Order: sequence, then structure tokens, then C-alpha cells
Amino acid sequence: MEQTAITAIRITAAQAIQKANSGHPGMAIGSAPAAYTLWKQMRHNPQNPHWANRDRFVLSCGHASALEYALLHFFGYGLTMEDLKQFRQLGSKTPGHPEYGHTRGVEATTGPLGQGFAMAVGMAMAEAHKAAVYNREGYPIVDNYTYTMLGDGCMMEGVASEAASMAGTLRLGKLIALYDSNRITIEGDTDITFREDVAARFAAYGWQVLDVPDGEDTAALAAAIAEAKAEAGKPTLIIYHTVIGVGTPVAGTAKAHGSPLGAAGMLAMRAHYNWHHPDFDVPQEIYDHYNTLTTPGTEAEADWNALFARYAKEYPELAAQWQQDHAPNLPIDLLQDEAFWHFEGKAASRVSSGEILNRLAARLPNLFGGSADLAPSNCTYLKGLGDYSAENYAGKNLHFGIREFAMAAACNGIALYGGLRTFCATFFVFADYLKPALRLSALMGLPVIYVLTHDSIGVGEDGPTHQPIEQLAMLRATPNTLMFRPADAREVAAGYIAALTHSGPTVLALSRQNLPLYENSGPAALQGAYILREPKGTPDVILMASGSELELLYKAADLLSVQGYTARIVSMPCWELFEAQSPAYRESVLPKSIRTRVAVEAAIPFGWERYTGDNGKIIALTGFGASAPAEQLYAHFGLTGEAIAKAALETIKS
Amino acid sequence: MEQTAITAIRITAAQAIQKANSGHPGMAIGSAPAAYTLWKQMRHNPQNPHWANRDRFVLSCGHASALEYALLHFFGYGLTMEDLKQFRQLGSKTPGHPEYGHTRGVEATTGPLGQGFAMAVGMAMAEAHKAAVYNREGYPIVDNYTYTMLGDGCMMEGVASEAASMAGTLRLGKLIALYDSNRITIEGDTDITFREDVAARFAAYGWQVLDVPDGEDTAALAAAIAEAKAEAGKPTLIIYHTVIGVGTPVAGTAKAHGSPLGAAGMLAMRAHYNWHHPDFDVPQEIYDHYNTLTTPGTEAEADWNALFARYAKEYPELAAQWQQDHAPNLPIDLLQDEAFWHFEGKAASRVSSGEILNRLAARLPNLFGGSADLAPSNCTYLKGLGDYSAENYAGKNLHFGIREFAMAAACNGIALYGGLRTFCATFFVFADYLKPALRLSALMGLPVIYVLTHDSIGVGEDGPTHQPIEQLAMLRATPNTLMFRPADAREVAAGYIAALTHSGPTVLALSRQNLPLYENSGPAALQGAYILREPKGTPDVILMASGSELELLYKAADLLSVQGYTARIVSMPCWELFEAQSPAYRESVLPKSIRTRVAVEAAIPFGWERYTGDNGKIIALTGFGASAPAEQLYAHFGLTGEAIAKAALETIKS
Repeated sequence: MEQTAITAIRITAAQAIQKANSGHPGMAIGSAPAAYTLWKQMRHNPQNPHWANRDRFVLSCGHASALEYALLHFFGYGLTMEDLKQFRQLGSKTPGHPEYGHTRGVEATTGPLGQGFAMAVGMAMAEAHKAAVYNREGYPIVDNYTYTMLGDGCMMEGVASEAASMAGTLRLGKLIALYDSNRITIEGDTDITFREDVAARFAAYGWQVLDVPDGEDTAALAAAIAEAKAEAGKPTLIIYHTVIGVGTPVAGTAKAHGSPLGAAGMLAMRAHYNWHHPDFDVPQEIYDHYNTLTTPGTEAEADWNALFARYAKEYPELAAQWQQDHAPNLPIDLLQDEAFWHFEGKAASRVSSGEILNRLAARLPNLFGGSADLAPSNCTYLKGLGDYSAENYAGKNLHFGIREFAMAAACNGIALYGGLRTFCATFFVFADYLKPALRLSALMGLPVIYVLTHDSIGVGEDGPTHQPIEQLAMLRATPNTLMFRPADAREVAAGYIAALTHSGPTVLALSRQNLPLYENSGPAALQGAYILREPKGTPDVILMASGSELELLYKAADLLSVQGYTARIVSMPCWELFEAQSPAYRESVLPKSIRTRVAVEAAIPFGWERYTGDNGKIIALTGFGASAPAEQLYAHFGLTGEAIAKAALETIKS
Repeated sequence: MEQTAITAIRITAAQAIQKANSGHPGMAIGSAPAAYTLWKQMRHNPQNPHWANRDRFVLSCGHASALEYALLHFFGYGLTMEDLKQFRQLGSKTPGHPEYGHTRGVEATTGPLGQGFAMAVGMAMAEAHKAAVYNREGYPIVDNYTYTMLGDGCMMEGVASEAASMAGTLRLGKLIALYDSNRITIEGDTDITFREDVAARFAAYGWQVLDVPDGEDTAALAAAIAEAKAEAGKPTLIIYHTVIGVGTPVAGTAKAHGSPLGAAGMLAMRAHYNWHHPDFDVPQEIYDHYNTLTTPGTEAEADWNALFARYAKEYPELAAQWQQDHAPNLPIDLLQDEAFWHFEGKAASRVSSGEILNRLAARLPNLFGGSADLAPSNCTYLKGLGDYSAENYAGKNLHFGIREFAMAAACNGIALYGGLRTFCATFFVFADYLKPALRLSALMGLPVIYVLTHDSIGVGEDGPTHQPIEQLAMLRATPNTLMFRPADAREVAAGYIAALTHSGPTVLALSRQNLPLYENSGPAALQGAYILREPKGTPDVILMASGSELELLYKAADLLSVQGYTARIVSMPCWELFEAQSPAYRESVLPKSIRTRVAVEAAIPFGWERYTGDNGKIIALTGFGASAPAEQLYAHFGLTGEAIAKAALETIKS
């Protein structure tokens, strides 16, 4: 029956791909025995894919989506054969790559290679942390495993290397990765470009490495999984060797990777596996078999619920905290929290951010994050809350090392795990290094907070390699992402509230240099753009900017005032929030009748035309920065109150 | 004298940082003995930093720039003590991080960690290729070594892992990396996040790994370098152990990393090293010592020049080809080349690109590039020109594996090496994965061609993880980068000409799906935007688009025509080239008098307001894509001729 059950997965996946005339059958077929063996022993309850202590499964090789859909179908997650027939069709539950939040039971959106593996590392980090925080003698409230499957593609990606090194250092014993070594990629045999000894490499990272010579041998696979689970002090990599598209005419070749098998190929595959049922028609006895496999998971959740009920009696405060951690909405009212909003004097927005993060940590004990080795510069350290390490999983300060991409991907994993609020940090220019993971935060709707400091040429002496120029445009263009660049401490506070209530990532771009505290700043910043200073009567010009450049607007307004002109000053920390306001509000800030407008930003001007319009001007940078003290750079690149006033006069007089 | 010479480097670097009150003394001080030992034996001629066969040196840990500047100073590259006094000042030759093209002798712009190492891998790939192409019995025209120095930061970055795996597979015996293992990063001891066994990891990649326990031991360092050079079949990693900021009060601590030592620290350092000369004042005997070290390099170039003269007599065709390879400008006239411009019928622009790449390879034998395992999909294979591998360095098709970031960084290294024209390829959405390296292409002004296919929701079934949405905006916002999205085969040809003549990277965004061949397309596309169809008289509306969406404009124009309205159709493959045209030309394409404008693009609309203006409309996407057949997606997201015609009518009637 086991072989028949595995064949059902293989055939169903291949049929879905064939019907769609699109998809990747090779690994779905080759890895079916491993996937079956893994899921068979997983502690999960298809009746409730949200059970907090379920084992996690991430298909890092997302192109093998048909395999995951077949698993979800047979293991009773409610994905129907009708859904599988709609594989890769508009609006179906079975899109080309697995999508979190779209298909019940899919734990992560995967497809961009390497990232699923890194998200699994993040999940295992989260599990270890929550176990350390919540478990008590006799109450293993958190003790799930995190499993991930990956192929040669994931193994070559740098983000997987970064994440593997991190996982080894952290000794994440509940992380188990299954690597389908079929030695075939799109351009052919991996020998053309991938000759490394993967087992030795992972051992060097501090992993246990197990080898299953025959990926068809379910007994050996089961034994390896059991051995992996028995090693509590190290993550485990199980390397299992397969033939891509085994049992089909294209077995063992690159042709099996990304194309349907074709009618003849399907016939040959059916014959090879001795499968004689109509398309998408699987005998009930196979479903009966799968039903027996899921019962233990259902029972496990029932046991866990009983355990948690006893735990709640013995540790009511912890249980209450657990409930707060898992509340769908922000459980505290920060808008009305006076202490949260209290600031004095000048401060770099990165410093204000550090203060706010610590205020948040005091209010939200499930705040859990850190920096890619720049905590002192990013001001992200949570004081007194300990350093997360293999020796102290209870620590709330994560040390990601100089691994920006794996950091962001791991934060996606932490957010996916649930019950935690997470942030990560680096220099703003290195948004480039983590962009692929931020895109997945956006696509999955995960509220990861990106604390990115040193947000302009204000970086100064470190020079053009460290000065962001195009990153604001890049992130404003990214869907479902709040790109928030605050002008002062209160706007930083607003930015964090926006971040904590947005179903997607928020980037806080923060200054290295000191910023003033503006009289009228505050919660209004949550509207994305608002009037910070208004003259009497209709203003002659609207000056707008984000972040540190607000200060220049005040200088320009004063210069204009001397010449008898009045200026409205608009702070625009977040375009996306402004676009989400009512037309009436937007008109009140930027009335169509006032076409004299100047926008200022220490970045490429790209995109500002939306707000300046045909008659407006943009004072911005035209290229990369330079190495020099920051004040000199602003003057050098023409970002001065004088230049802004001059541009304003031109628009007024034109 | 050797120790004194090393002390001069340490003191000079520390003084420059102290005077600038900004910089990173720790590694500059700790790695001075290794750097001295390395440069002492390097075959390079400071009189001519462009000598083709010089050994290359890349400081991957670019923050230790003061070390490189001190080396360039003492080894006679013309960097003066006055330049060092201007460290990190506006317009100086000694910016915060080393900048290629700015400071004589700097081989690569570094600072974004991990990339210098990957560029060095690219340089070594280039060297091996050119050696295979040009060397003949008795004529080792190309046989330089490539050296790179790196620290813990580079070692943690994924791009370095990718590049190391590639270098190991390719058995690049002339690549030698020196790793300063000081075990200190900004957040503290590397033990907090980096416990892996680096030596074992590199051995797993196929590298020779040598260990120098004491990084002060120049004899041991020299022996290791000699042993590295003796291993022709593997790249070598020399791990040398140092104390960060050795000999200063902050030695061995994170404080030594990124802050000046301070006056007291400088005093203590002077005392420790028994250095009693005034600031920036080095005794002549030390310069005399350094002068003796550079003589062999000067002689080596003279020998090489004589060798090349003999080679040119014996192999005149090869020598002529060499000269053409190294010509500063494009040595052929593609604009007048009829065969180059000949196309027929419909074709996906990726297919046209494949045809053009092969036409180029026939005309430019130094074309050298490949894909990140997507050559069949990217259509980048150069037919009949062989596969580059450890067994065939003469092959012109590179197989980068699934390592987009290292691919792009390696192409930077190939372009830096000289005498080669390089391209790399992946899906357009994975521009995200390689963006940090593309930024360095732009910053260094390197003409790397990025062939990025599957450029929109036209990807279809693979779904939102594989559908670029914000990438056009991201790359249009990147300075010194041509973002070229051609509408047909002739525009692809124009894109390649633009790429081959631009001093910076060009991204060609190419369609998966078939495109028409437009009657009036051609070299005019080099102007960035041009009129593809013009009605009689003044048009009622201007319709503009890039790439595959041009086809929709024709449908819309026909629909408008039925209703009695005329439309100009403007193709805008490259905004940057259009912005570089004369105001008169730009006005001729988009006259201020015609304010009825509609722009169309299967991407986020971000940035199009520049061209549509206050009265225009943009038909674009508002968020991520979806998994479905491509035609259905265009209709689903409202990208249809009907929708465009409707928007045009609205602008006409408003």
C-alpha cells in the first residue's frame, strides 16, 4: 500500500502538470517517496492547519508545487481533486508556486530559490525561542520540528549558505532539511557547475549530515528522519539521492525538470508504475490509507489542547501572555500612550528608533529581532533582554551576522511561525542585499519591520558604496510595502505604529545625523503626508520632503518669507499611506489649485513627479554620492535651503 | 627594515583615519604584515597599473581602505602623503572605500561585503579564459595571479559562498584568497554568530586551504603564498590569524573596527611600535626599501612587452585579435551592418536576443558570458563556442549555476579584468537577487550586459514569485544604468548596441511571449523613445509604452480610429537614453502642447507621471501578479486595447 500511495502522489502531480500543460514534474516525481515518508511521521493536524505546535513543512524547491498540492490533497487538507485539475489556472487554489495565505496548509510562499530553506531556519529559531520562553517542567508547550525540502538549486544559492551557517551556530536541533540530490538542473548535470562536497560543507557549518543512497528506500528515509530527530544539539541535513522524473521517459535528464511529460510520457509513466485508474481518479483504499496517517496528528493536537488547559491553570500569566502574543491585532493602544510619544530635543532618527524599540519591547514582550552585525549603528539593541544564542534561546536580541539576505528571510520565517513580532536591521543601502526576501514579506503579507539606518548621503565619509540613492524608489515601487522615512522622533513613533498594524513589511529609513523635533509632528504622520507648517492665507508654494530634508524646507521657507512669499510645508514620510487616504484629505494637503510645488529629497528624484506635477520642481540627486563629511555633501549636491528657495521662486514666477 | 616598513603602513593608515576622524583602523593595522608580504611578491608595475598581465589585487574588505591607500603610497602608485591627509574628504583620491576608476591602482570598488571576493573569482575566470585563448607554447601571454583579501564579514556573505563554490568547481589555480581571521565584528566576537569551520567549508568547495597561525609571521605568510602559487589545480584560501588593531589600546576588541583611535590611542600605538617620526612623515630609507620591491615588477612588464612583440610576429592574427579585444571603443560598426539588423516575423524578444547574441559572438570573439542555469529559457547559449569549465577554459559559455548574485559580481570581475565583453542572464524578477552587484557595475561604469528575460506577467503560470512588477522602476531609478525594454527584434538589436557603447551596465528586459516586428522600428530606438506610428495632422492623443505592451497600443489606436480619433504611438524602450537627447528631440516626441497622453506598462506605474503629466493616464498594475496563462492575465489585470482606448477617450474629453 505504501508504494501505491506514493505512486498516487507521483501520478496526481504529473497529471496536474500535464493538464495545465505547464509545471515541473521532475522533482515532484523523484521526491515523492521522501515527501510521503516525511509527512507520514509529521505531527500535524489537517483539520487545523493553524495549531500552534504543529510541525512545520516548507517546500524550498517551490517549483515542485504539484508535489505539495498532492500531499495536501491526500493528507486531507481540503484541497480537492478539482483544485488539482485547476493547477496553475487563474484564481485556483493551486498556483504555479506554493502561496502562503492562499492555499490551506501551505506554510510559506516559495519559488525564489534558497529562501524557503532560510525561512525554515527562521521558523526553527522562533520555535527554540518560544520553547525557552514558555515551556515549563512537564509542559512542553512548544516542541515542534521544522522540516524543509530542497534541491540543487536551493543548495547553490548564497542565502541558503548564510542560513545554514546561522543554523549551525545556533545548534537548532529541531531543524531537519531533506535535500534531493538528483544532480540535474536546467542547464544539465550539476557537474558543469556544482562539484562541491555538500555533506562536508554542512558538517563544517555544524550540522549533522545523513546520507540515504537510494531516495526510493522509504525505510532508510524513515530511519534517517528518526536519527535526525534524535540529535537535539544540531540541525540535520538528510541527503537523499534520486533520479529526477524517475519512471518516465525523461528520467535522469534536464528535460524532466520544467516541462509536462506529454501524452506519450504520461502513458509510459502509467505503465512503469502499473497505474490503471482514470485521470484524477484515485481508489478509495488509497484515501483510507492516508486517513490512517493523519489520525495521530489530530490526537496530538487534542492532547496539546488538554496540556495547554492545565498549563493555563498552573501558569495563568504565561498563558495570558501567550494569548496576547497570538492576538490577531495589536493588543495595546499606542496612539493614546503618552509615554510612548514623549520625546525631547534633537536626535538622529536611528536613535529615536532605538528608544522606541525599547519602549515597544516593554509593552510587547514578543518583540524579537536584531541586526546584521550593525546593532550599535542601527540602534536596535533591546536593553536587558538578552542575546539569542545556542546557550540562551530566551534572548530577544538576534545576532544575524553579516548575512542581510538570510536575516530578512529568517524574519519571514519568524513571522510565519506565529506569536512573535519581528524586526531586522542593516544600513539602508543594503536593502539591495535583502530585497528578494522583503519581496516575499510583501507577497505573503508579513508584518516584518525593516529598520534601515544611514538613509542618505548623510552617511558621509563611507562614500557612495554606502549611500542609498535609488533605494527609496525601489521600495516605494514594491507592492504592499510601507516605505516610511520619518522626519523626527514622533514620526518614527508613527512609523512603528504603521508597521505594527500593516499586513505587510514596513521599511523605516532612518538618519545617521541629528534631526529636529517639529512642533506639529505626531500621529498625523500616519496619514502618510500632512501639513507641518501652514502660513496665513493661501500659500504661494507647497514645499514637500521626507525625512532629514524637512529641515531644509524650513530654511527655504524662512528665506522665501524674507522675500514676501509664503510656503506650506508638507512632510511626506510614507507615500503608500498617503495614497490610501480619502481624495478629500489628499486634496486638502496637495490642492489641485496650488500648482507651485517643490519636492526635496536626498535621493534620485524618480517618482516625485506624481506630487510635483507639470509645474513643479524637484531638488534631488542625479547620481551616486561621494565620500566626505555629510554637511559638505548636502551643499556639494545642491541640497540647501537657498537652492530650494530659488526653485520655489522659479515656480512661483513661471 | 621589513618590520619598519610594515609599521609605516600601520601608522600611516591609522594617522589618515585619525585625521579624517572617520574610518576603520582595526583590520588595516592587523592585516598590514599579510598585505606587505603579499604585495612584496606580487608581479605588478606601479608605473603602469594597466599592464594587461599584472597580478590583480582586490581588497574585498573595502572598509580597510586606508590599508590599500598606504600600500599604493609606499609601492609608488603615485598616491601622495597629501592624498592620505585628505582621507575621506570631498574630491580626494582617498575616499571612504576604494573606488575603481577614481584612484590609480585600485582594481575594484569594494565595501559592500563579499563582492570583492566574488569579483576576484570573476577576474580569475577571465584570466583562465584568456590564457586558454591566447597562450601558445613558449608564449605565456596571460599568466597572472588574482589575489583578494577578506575578513569575517565577507566570509559570512552568501555571495562569497556562491563564488567560492564556483571557483572550486572551476579549479581556478591562480586565485589566492587571504582571509584575515580576527574573529571580531561590529557586534563583538564572531562566536556569537559565526562558529563554522571555514577551513573545512572551503575544502568542501574544492579549495586548497592553508593556515598561518600567526598573522605577524611574514615568513610563514610568504611560505603560504608560495605554496598557494604552487597548487595549479585548485584555488587557495590562506587563513591567517590576527588580532584586530594589534598594538593599540583597543586591540582585540570590536572598538578597533570602525572608529579612529583617538589622540591617546595614537600615542599608545606609536609607543608600541617605537615610531617617533612626525605625522605623515616617513623616513626616506623606508621609501628606498619599497622602491627595491617594485623593481622586479617593472622588469617583468618590460620582459612581457618583449615577449608580446615576439608573439605578435609569430602569431599576428592572435595579436591583432588581442588588440581588438583591448580597443577602448566598439571596434565594429553595427549600425551599418545589414545582416545584424535583419529579422523576420514574430518572435519573443528573448529569442531575438539569442539570435543577436550569436551574431555578436561571430563579430566580437571576446564575447564571454552565460546564465544562472537558465540558458535554454534566457536564450543565451552561444552556439558552437564551447562550455567554459575546469576542463575547457576556452569555452565561451559560462555556467554560473543557480547563483545570480555571484554571477553578476563575477561579470564585474570579468569586465574589470579587461579585454572581454561580458553578459549574464536570469529571469527579470531575479534582478532582485543580483541588484547589489549591478549597483557596483553602475558605480564602476562597467559595461556588463544583463540579459533578463520573462519580463512581466507574460511569465504566466509560474505566478507572482516569478513575475516582475517593481523591477523596471527599481532599475530605472538606479544611476548610470540603461534599463532597456525592447518592443521587437530590431529594438533588441538597438539595445545591444546601446549596451556595447555605454559606460555602465545595461539591463535588457525581454519577453517570454512572441512580439510583432514593427514597420518603423530600428536604430531610432537608440534615442530611448521615438514615434513608431504617426497619424496625419496633430494627433488627438499620445499612446506610449515599452516592450510587449506596444502591441496593445496598436489595438487601442485602431479602436480610437473607428471612433474618429487619431493616436501617435511612442515606443519608449529606454528612459535614460531619452533623457539624454536634446530638448528639441524630446519635445518632438512628447510636445508640451499635447497633454492627452496614456502610458501603458505591465508593471507598477511608478515613475510614468514624468511623461504622462497632470492630464495623462497610466494603465498599469497595482500589485503583484497571479498564476495563470499569460493571455488571461493581461485581460484579468485590465491591460487591453479596450481599456487603453477608454482611458485615451477620457483624457481627450477631459
